[in-house]
Amino acid sequence: MAKTVTLNTPLDMHLHLRDASMLELVAPLTAQTFSGALVMPNLVPPVTTREDLIAYKQRIIKASKNDAFEPYMTLFFQQYSKAFLEEVQDEIIGIKLYPAGITTNSETGVSSIDSQTLRPTLEAMSDLGIPLCIHGETNGFVMDREKEFMPIYESLAKDFPKLKIIMEHITTKEAVDLLAKYENLYATITVQHLLITLDDVAGGMLKPHLFCKPIAKRYEDREALLQVALSANPKVMFGSDSAPHPKHKKESCGCAAGVFTAPIALQVLTELFDKHDCLENLNAFVSENALKIYDITPPKKEIVLEKKAFQVPENYSNDTEVVVPMYAGETIAWSLVSL
Amino acid sequence: MAKTVTLNTPLDMHLHLRDASMLELVAPLTAQTFSGALVMPNLVPPVTTREDLIAYKQRIIKASKNDAFEPYMTLFFQQYSKAFLEEVQDEIIGIKLYPAGITTNSETGVSSIDSQTLRPTLEAMSDLGIPLCIHGETNGFVMDREKEFMPIYESLAKDFPKLKIIMEHITTKEAVDLLAKYENLYATITVQHLLITLDDVAGGMLKPHLFCKPIAKRYEDREALLQVALSANPKVMFGSDSAPHPKHKKESCGCAAGVFTAPIALQVLTELFDKHDCLENLNAFVSENALKIYDITPPKKEIVLEKKAFQVPENYSNDTEVVVPMYAGETIAWSLVSL
Repeated sequence: MAKTVTLNTPLDMHLHLRDASMLELVAPLTAQTFSGALVMPNLVPPVTTREDLIAYKQRIIKASKNDAFEPYMTLFFQQYSKAFLEEVQDEIIGIKLYPAGITTNSETGVSSIDSQTLRPTLEAMSDLGIPLCIHGETNGFVMDREKEFMPIYESLAKDFPKLKIIMEHITTKEAVDLLAKYENLYATITVQHLLITLDDVAGGMLKPHLFCKPIAKRYEDREALLQVALSANPKVMFGSDSAPHPKHKKESCGCAAGVFTAPIALQVLTELFDKHDCLENLNAFVSENALKIYDITPPKKEIVLEKKAFQVPENYSNDTEVVVPMYAGETIAWSLVSL
Repeated sequence: MAKTVTLNTPLDMHLHLRDASMLELVAPLTAQTFSGALVMPNLVPPVTTREDLIAYKQRIIKASKNDAFEPYMTLFFQQYSKAFLEEVQDEIIGIKLYPAGITTNSETGVSSIDSQTLRPTLEAMSDLGIPLCIHGETNGFVMDREKEFMPIYESLAKDFPKLKIIMEHITTKEAVDLLAKYENLYATITVQHLLITLDDVAGGMLKPHLFCKPIAKRYEDREALLQVALSANPKVMFGSDSAPHPKHKKESCGCAAGVFTAPIALQVLTELFDKHDCLENLNAFVSENALKIYDITPPKKEIVLEKKAFQVPENYSNDTEVVVPMYAGETIAWSLVSL
């Protein structure tokens, strides 16, 4: 009999679901295997009002077609009044801050990230217990952007010691090291950053489907991320940053950033933790740590995986969208036991 | 009246012309503006015999449709006997060494590059005055490959002091610095490495048409390359490494490495040298240095450029091939005066 593993209440704490036909395609793929997901607000225009939030959440619930799935909503960071945040806080799990222009649909993000400028909003968030999720990259050289952002994380962590700050999709040893330094710093890590380096993106052929922001870094960075994830470190959570782009936009002259991993993430993570003999720590990474950090109680869901080859589809599609997943056409050693 | 500049006997000392329909398409584009070009031998199978050399040269001459163009042929490095090299030396300008598997069609390259292993061939080349052209990359992390190759250049330069060694398409400050250290080390530099960094390839959208090997590096590397090219340093020559790949192979899941610059190289270089007020040094970079280093007398050709906008075509094509040039659809400040 094949070896099996059971995941309880898996959570994806960083997810792009987009909208309209793309939402219809990708939401069910997450909802079938995850109990909940923290949903990014970088639509066009971004999610910045209570009405937007509620309407988007309803569209997600409708598209996901799964009662045991909770979309945890976020607002796109702007200067918000405390009165507004009080009014909206029951609808959100956090607020996502993007430096302006740093990634897909972030044009209206923050152009100067410093405690002085952002103090009114961050103080209100701190008082109300609303976590701050950050895409931590400067506009410097592509391989240095996250590392250069570390002093900004540090000053925010120091200046707002009661504010929970989540360093999203970390990719460097420097970010891993910073986690231990501030009690109020946490992090999400994607599937791909545990597996690839820049060599996989651009070391052989150029691989658009492995191109994301932050870009995959060096071997020593991947090793640091892997160690902190495999060891059930309570400050890191799985956040796929699964980011669907239409196939023709990925395979073109100017390919958009984002790796689509939602439907394969749990299989790949199980294979990875199994390979490193750390399966007993997988549930901490994909669920328990997030439950504690965000203090949430998602719908219960048991996902059983077995050590049996799973061939990743070449793409996922509906009438209007075609999206290519990571490892398209390749084989993963673990499969979902049919739900 | 528009500002003009005249280039005498321009040379491209590192060029991929491919074969068959691709050769038919790209050879005339180089031949119309260059007096000569050093032609890479990495066909499939590679050029390793006197017969291959002569036949390939004839195909190039036929395809280039220009009497004032000389293809300077190279052999693909293997262990060759001195007798063979004596027999073939009038047909070649140098021998190109590829580490095995390091770039397009290099699978049959050298797996271990050390003076001991290669001594018989390198000694014969040194005795006969045949230059050695090297693609200098290890199989390490993509951003470190050229830097890691420096000790290999050093040991070859020391062990064969009379052998002219050309570090092909250098991309790093380390390679520029090494030039000054050994009398017998020279280098070629491409157009794109004087202009772009990894930020242009993967810092915004992913740009397959700017993806090449060695990959573009950091700003400090580009600055070092620029300084050595602009200053008419006699040890560096222009070598475009212009590498045509069919459009569909560049814009796909696994994009091949190579930037196609042959038809725009002189315009772009003129714009660049003009911008830096170094036009008086352009002829050294695109001709005079190579004439001295290789001791050649190519057909005379005067190329006049004027400061007048040139819109780069979206692609160059014939019945079977479509190739996208660097800066496709964009405007360059300098044009060729019609020939």
